[in-house]
Amino acid sequence: MLLKENIPVSYVFGKIKKELILTAIYSATIYFIHQYYNFKAVSIPLTVSTILGTIISLLLAFRSNQAYDRWWEARILWGGIVNDCRTFTRQILTFVDSSHDGEQKRALKERMIRRQMAWCYSLSRHLRGQNAKENLEAYLNDDDFKALKKADNAPLAINEMQGHDLRTLYKLGWINEYQQVTLDGTLTNFMNFMGGCERIKNTVFPATYSVYIHLLVLFFVLLLPFSLIEFFGIFQVPLVIAISSAFFLIEKMAIHLQDPFENMPTDTPTTTISRTIEKNLKQMMKDELPGDIDAVVNKQPQKQAVFYIL
Amino acid sequence: MLLKENIPVSYVFGKIKKELILTAIYSATIYFIHQYYNFKAVSIPLTVSTILGTIISLLLAFRSNQAYDRWWEARILWGGIVNDCRTFTRQILTFVDSSHDGEQKRALKERMIRRQMAWCYSLSRHLRGQNAKENLEAYLNDDDFKALKKADNAPLAINEMQGHDLRTLYKLGWINEYQQVTLDGTLTNFMNFMGGCERIKNTVFPATYSVYIHLLVLFFVLLLPFSLIEFFGIFQVPLVIAISSAFFLIEKMAIHLQDPFENMPTDTPTTTISRTIEKNLKQMMKDELPGDIDAVVNKQPQKQAVFYIL
Amino acid sequence: MLLKENIPVSYVFGKIKKELILTAIYSATIYFIHQYYNFKAVSIPLTVSTILGTIISLLLAFRSNQAYDRWWEARILWGGIVNDCRTFTRQILTFVDSSHDGEQKRALKERMIRRQMAWCYSLSRHLRGQNAKENLEAYLNDDDFKALKKADNAPLAINEMQGHDLRTLYKLGWINEYQQVTLDGTLTNFMNFMGGCERIKNTVFPATYSVYIHLLVLFFVLLLPFSLIEFFGIFQVPLVIAISSAFFLIEKMAIHLQDPFENMPTDTPTTTISRTIEKNLKQMMKDELPGDIDAVVNKQPQKQAVFYIL
Amino acid sequence: MLLKENIPVSYVFGKIKKELILTAIYSATIYFIHQYYNFKAVSIPLTVSTILGTIISLLLAFRSNQAYDRWWEARILWGGIVNDCRTFTRQILTFVDSSHDGEQKRALKERMIRRQMAWCYSLSRHLRGQNAKENLEAYLNDDDFKALKKADNAPLAINEMQGHDLRTLYKLGWINEYQQVTLDGTLTNFMNFMGGCERIKNTVFPATYSVYIHLLVLFFVLLLPFSLIEFFGIFQVPLVIAISSAFFLIEKMAIHLQDPFENMPTDTPTTTISRTIEKNLKQMMKDELPGDIDAVVNKQPQKQAVFYIL
Amino acid sequence: MLLKENIPVSYVFGKIKKELILTAIYSATIYFIHQYYNFKAVSIPLTVSTILGTIISLLLAFRSNQAYDRWWEARILWGGIVNDCRTFTRQILTFVDSSHDGEQKRALKERMIRRQMAWCYSLSRHLRGQNAKENLEAYLNDDDFKALKKADNAPLAINEMQGHDLRTLYKLGWINEYQQVTLDGTLTNFMNFMGGCERIKNTVFPATYSVYIHLLVLFFVLLLPFSLIEFFGIFQVPLVIAISSAFFLIEKMAIHLQDPFENMPTDTPTTTISRTIEKNLKQMMKDELPGDIDAVVNKQPQKQAVFYIL
Repeated sequence: MLLKENIPVSYVFGKIKKELILTAIYSATIYFIHQYYNFKAVSIPLTVSTILGTIISLLLAFRSNQAYDRWWEARILWGGIVNDCRTFTRQILTFVDSSHDGEQKRALKERMIRRQMAWCYSLSRHLRGQNAKENLEAYLNDDDFKALKKADNAPLAINEMQGHDLRTLYKLGWINEYQQVTLDGTLTNFMNFMGGCERIKNTVFPATYSVYIHLLVLFFVLLLPFSLIEFFGIFQVPLVIAISSAFFLIEKMAIHLQDPFENMPTDTPTTTISRTIEKNLKQMMKDELPGDIDAVVNKQPQKQAVFYIL
Repeated sequence: MLLKENIPVSYVFGKIKKELILTAIYSATIYFIHQYYNFKAVSIPLTVSTILGTIISLLLAFRSNQAYDRWWEARILWGGIVNDCRTFTRQILTFVDSSHDGEQKRALKERMIRRQMAWCYSLSRHLRGQNAKENLEAYLNDDDFKALKKADNAPLAINEMQGHDLRTLYKLGWINEYQQVTLDGTLTNFMNFMGGCERIKNTVFPATYSVYIHLLVLFFVLLLPFSLIEFFGIFQVPLVIAISSAFFLIEKMAIHLQDPFENMPTDTPTTTISRTIEKNLKQMMKDELPGDIDAVVNKQPQKQAVFYIL
Repeated sequence: MLLKENIPVSYVFGKIKKELILTAIYSATIYFIHQYYNFKAVSIPLTVSTILGTIISLLLAFRSNQAYDRWWEARILWGGIVNDCRTFTRQILTFVDSSHDGEQKRALKERMIRRQMAWCYSLSRHLRGQNAKENLEAYLNDDDFKALKKADNAPLAINEMQGHDLRTLYKLGWINEYQQVTLDGTLTNFMNFMGGCERIKNTVFPATYSVYIHLLVLFFVLLLPFSLIEFFGIFQVPLVIAISSAFFLIEKMAIHLQDPFENMPTDTPTTTISRTIEKNLKQMMKDELPGDIDAVVNKQPQKQAVFYIL
Repeated sequence: MLLKENIPVSYVFGKIKKELILTAIYSATIYFIHQYYNFKAVSIPLTVSTILGTIISLLLAFRSNQAYDRWWEARILWGGIVNDCRTFTRQILTFVDSSHDGEQKRALKERMIRRQMAWCYSLSRHLRGQNAKENLEAYLNDDDFKALKKADNAPLAINEMQGHDLRTLYKLGWINEYQQVTLDGTLTNFMNFMGGCERIKNTVFPATYSVYIHLLVLFFVLLLPFSLIEFFGIFQVPLVIAISSAFFLIEKMAIHLQDPFENMPTDTPTTTISRTIEKNLKQMMKDELPGDIDAVVNKQPQKQAVFYIL
Repeated sequence: MLLKENIPVSYVFGKIKKELILTAIYSATIYFIHQYYNFKAVSIPLTVSTILGTIISLLLAFRSNQAYDRWWEARILWGGIVNDCRTFTRQILTFVDSSHDGEQKRALKERMIRRQMAWCYSLSRHLRGQNAKENLEAYLNDDDFKALKKADNAPLAINEMQGHDLRTLYKLGWINEYQQVTLDGTLTNFMNFMGGCERIKNTVFPATYSVYIHLLVLFFVLLLPFSLIEFFGIFQVPLVIAISSAFFLIEKMAIHLQDPFENMPTDTPTTTISRTIEKNLKQMMKDELPGDIDAVVNKQPQKQAVFYIL
C-alpha cells in the first residue's frame, strides 16, 4: 500500500509526454484548419472511431494480459527463490549435526549458505545484463571467487559449486544418501527458477503484434479529431488528448511489464528480494550482520530507484 | 451461503458514499445550469460515452480478473496451510510410535503440533503487519518463546525450530531417515505457502494501471451528464448516479480483492482459518480444549469483523 | 450425452419463473400507460440500453467464468479422489503380500479399503452439511465406528485411522519404509483433496460483485421497455421478456455453479462418484457385493435427483 | 499442416446444412411478405441486433473457450500417456538387468510392456463406450485375458495386473525397493490420466448454458431479416445466411470440442496415439513387428476417419 | 529488446502483401463503379460493419490467445529442457565421484553429457520434420551412432541409451540406488518435455474455427467499402486497406504462433537453445570447445534466420 502513495502522477504521465505533446499540436492544427479554411469535407462519422476503439481495446486487453502474466511469472519465480533459499538453509542447518566436532561443519555450512546469497545477487545481475561476478567478495571465499572468474555463466557455476560441496558433505558422512538427494532436489529447483527467468528475459514478445497495435493506435489518434470536431469544436482538443493518452499509457505499461529484467524502476525488484533473502538467511544462521557487506550492497545501481511503479 | 445474507446493502454502498454524493451534486448542478442558463452548446453525443464505457468495462474486467486471481491464490495458499497442518500432524502422530516409553515422545509430539498452531497465528499476524510474536504463549514453551523474541521474522524462526526438533527425532531414532525427509518436505511446503503469501502482500498491483483506470472513470462520469441531459432532463441525475456507481463499486471491489492481507473485513480470513486448524489439530491429538487458550484467541482484533463481504 | 436429453426445458425456465412473470407484468403495464395515457416523455434512446447491455454482458462473462472455474475445480478434486482411491487400493493390495499367513493380512487390507469407501461417503455428506457419520456401518468395523462418534470432523478422523493402520502395517513388517512413505503420500493427497473441497465450500464468492450485478440487471430490465416501445409497440413485451430472461438465466447458472456442494441437483455428483469408487474398489478386491450395503446407499437423499442439469 | 489441407469445405458446411436451408427459406419468405404485402410495420432498428449480436458473441467466446480447454486437456492427458508409456518401458528395461539368467526376465519384461500397449487400446475403447475387452488377444497372454473377462472396468483391471507383476519383480529380487516405488509411481500416473479422461467423458457441460445460447442464437436469426430488409432488400437473404452461419458453426464446433471421446472424427485421436505408443514401445524392445497384430488393429472402427477436422 | 529493433517493417507487411494488393484493387474498383456509374443502391449502413467487426475481433482475440498459449507452452518446454540438461549434468558430475580411478569414470561421464547434447539437437530436428540422425557425429561415439541408425524415433533411442548407461553406473557401484532413481526421474522429465513438444507439433488447431474466421474476415473486407464510400469518397480506399490489414495481420500472426516447430523464422528457436545448452554443459565439464563441432553446428539451416520476429 505504502509504495503506491509514492508514485507521483508526473511520473505516470512523464512516460508518454512526447506522444501527448504531438497529439495536442496535431489536434489543435486540425481545429484551426477546420475553423479558418472551412475544410469540412472530411468529417468522419463517430461510428468508425467506435469500431476502431473497440478493436484496439480488445487487442490491448489481450496484450496487457500476456504482459502481466510474464511479469507475474517473473515475480513468482523470484518468490520461489526466496522460499527455496530458506528451505535450503533450513536443510543445511538441520541435516548436518554440528553439536560435536562442530568447527569444521559450521564453517562448511556457513560457506554454503553465504554462497547461496551470492547466487541470488549474481542471478539478479546476470538477468539484467550486468557483470554477474561483481560485488560477490563478501559472500564467497577466495577459491570460489577465482573459479568463478573463469566461468561464462556465473550463477550456473555457483550452483555447480553447491553440488560439489553437497558431494563433500555426503562423502564425509555428514549427511546420509536421502538427505543428499533431497538437497540436490532443492538445487534442481534453483536451476528451474533460473531457467524460467532466462526464458522470460530472452523471449521477445511477438513483435508483429506489438508493431501492429502501435500503428493501429496511431491511426486511431489521427482519425479521432475528424470524428469529434463537429460536436465539440475547440473542446475536441482536450478530448482527443484524454482518449489517446489512455491508449498510449496502457500500451506503455504493457511494454514495461513484459520485460521485467531491464534495469528499470518497473522491474521485478530482484536486488531488494536478494537483500531480504540475505537478511532471512543471516537470521537463520544467528549471524551478526557484518557492516561492510551492507556497504557493498548499497553501492549497487538499483539504489536510486526509490519506488517501483508497478 | 449464510455469510451472504449477512451483508447489509448499506455496507456495499457505504464504501462509495463519498463518490456518489459528489456525483449527485455534480449532475444536479449540470441540470440547473442547463435549465436556467440555457447553456446547450456542449451536448455530447451518446456514442462518445458508449466508446468510453466499453473501454472502461474491458479494462475493469481485466483488472477485476487479476485482483480476483490474487485473492483466490491467497485463499488457495491458506487452504494449503490447512491441508499440510493436518498432514504434518498425522505424520508426527503416526510416524513416531509412542506406545512404549511414551511419556517423552508424547511430550515432544505435542510440542511440535502446538508449535505448528503457533506458526499459523504468527504468520497471520505477520502478513497483516501486526506484531507476529504476540498471543503465542499458549502454544509455545518458554524456551521457544524466548528464542522467538530475538528473531526478525517470527514464522520463519518457528519453522526453523520445527526443523531442529525433526533432527532431534531422527537422532533419537524415533523416526527413520525416509520419515525425516518426508516430514522435511512438509516443512518445505509451509515455507512455500508463507513465501507465496508474502509475495502477494509485498507486490503492488501495477500502479500505472490503477491510476489511469481511476482517472478514466472520473472523466467518464464528468462527461456522462452532457450525454444524457437532452433525452432525460431531470431524470438524468439518478441515471448518472446509477451508471457511475457501477463503475465505482467494481473498481473498489478490485482494490479490496487485490490486497487480501490488509486487516480489513474483506481479507482472507486467516484468523478464522488458524482457529479451524487449531480445532482440527486438537481433535487429532484427542486433546481437551484448554479454556485459557480460547480466551486469548478471542481477544484478537479480528473479532469485531462479524462478516466477510467478499 | 444421455444426461443432456433428460433436461426438460420446463426445468430450465422454472428456475426464473418468478422473475419472468414480474417482467411480463411490468412491460405490459408500461405498454398500456404509454398507449392510453399518451405518456411519451420518457422514451429512452436505444444506445443507453446498448451500453448497459454490453457492460452487463462483460461482467456476467467474467462472473460465469469464475463460477465455472470453481465448479470445474470441485469436479477435478473429486476426480482426483477417484484416482487416488484406486491407487491406494492397488498399493495396499500389491505392497502387502498375503500369499502366506494371509488370513490376518487379508482382513487388515479389506478393513483399510472399506474404510476408504467410508471416507468418500463421509466427505460427501460433510461437504453438504449433512451428518457425516451416518450410513457408514457397512464400511467400518465397530471400533472405528465408536471412535468416529467422538470426532468433530469425521473424514479427518477416518484419514487419521488410515495413518494408524499404516503404522501397524509397518511395525508388523508387512510393508517396508519406502512403501510406508509412499502410502503416506497417498493419504496426504486425500487431505489435499478434502481441504480443496472445504475451501470451495467455505469461501463465499465476492458478494459486492454478486449484489451489484443483480441490481444492474434489474435496472437494465426496468429501462428496457422505454427503449423498445417506440419501435415495437406491443411486440415490445415478448422482446423484453426474451432479452431479460437471457440475463436472468445466466446469472442463475453462475449462482448454482459457484457453490457445488449445496445438496441441489446441480451439485458435483459426489454420491454417484462415491458409489463408482465403491464399485471399482470392490472389483479390485474381487469381492462379492453385499446386498445390504446397496440398500443403505439407496436410502440416501441424493436418490430423487434423477438428472444433473449442469 | 498436412491434415489441415485435407478438410473439404463441404465437410465444414455439411455440419450446419439443415440450419442454413431453414434460414434461407425463412429470410426469403420474409422478403416476399415484405415486398408483396407491404407489411412494413415491424422493421426492427439495427441497434437491437447489435446488442444481441455482441452478447451472443461474448457468450459463444466464453463457451468456445471452455470447450477448447476440455478438448486440449483431453489431448494433454493422452500426451501424458505417451510420455509415461515410454518412461515405464525405459524403467522396466533398464531397472531389470537381464544380461544373465535372462530368459525368464526377458519374458516377464515383454509381458509387462505388451500389457501396457493393451492398456492403451483398452482405455481408448472404454472411453468411447465400446467393448474395452476386444482386440486385445495379441497383447495379453491367456491368463490375463481370462481374468480380464470377469472385470467390469477393463483398463483398471489391467493396471492392477501391472501392480501384481511389480510385486513379483520385487519379490524375486529383480528390482530393489526404490525401483518398485518409482515404477509404482508411474502406474499411479496412468491411474491419474485414466481418471482425468473419465472425468471429461462423464461430466456434462452446463446444460442451462448450452440450451440458452442455442435459443438466443435462434432468436437472433429470427430477428435479423427485419433489421436488414430496409437497407438491403433482396440482398438481405445472403447476408442473413452469412451472419447466422457464423454463429451456427461456432456453436457446433464448441459442441464437438467439449466431448472429445464420442467416436466422431473430431475426437481426440486415441487409437492413432495408441498405435504410436505401440510402435515406440516395440522400437524400445527392439522387437520385430508381428504381422497379425497390425491386422487386428486395422479392423478397428476408427479406420474410415481419414482426417481429424479439429 | 535488441531483437525487436531488428525486425524491418517490410517483413511485417511482406507477410500479407498479396492480400493487401487485392484489397486495394477491389476497393478502388468499387470507388470507380460508384463514381462513374452512379450505382448507389447498395450503400451498407456502418452499423452492420460494426457488428461484424466486433464479432471478428472477439473471435480473433480468442484465437490469438490459444495460439499464443501453444507458442508459449513450446517455449516453456524448451526452457525446461535447458533446466534439466543443466540439472542432469550437475547430477552426473557430482553424484559420480571421479577423484580416484577417475579415468574410466570421467570417460563415462563425458559420454553421457555429450549424448545429452546430441539429444537436444536430435529432438530439435525431429520436431521440424528433418532427419533427426544428422550432424550428431561430434556428440556420440561410434557404437551409439550405429545403434541410432536402426531406430525410428532418434531422440527416444538416445534417451533409452542414457537409461542403459544409468544402469551401468549403478551396477558398477558408482552411484547408489537413490541416485539412480533421482537420475531416472530427470530422464523421465526429458520424456515429458519431448512428448509435450510432439503433442503441440501433431495436434492441429481446430480447423473449423480457422476456416470460418478466414471466411468471415474476407466477407467483412468485401462489405467494408460499401459502408465507407458515402462518407469518405476516395479516402475510402486507404481506410479499407488499413482496417483490413489489421485483421489480416493478426490472423497471420495466430497461424504462425500456433505451429512453433515448422522451420520458419517465427519458430521456437530450438537450435539456438540447443547451442546454449551445449555451451553451458561444456562450461560445467570445464571442457575446451572443439573447433570442428562448431563448424558442424554452423552448417545447420537455421543459420540464415538472423532474427525471430515473434
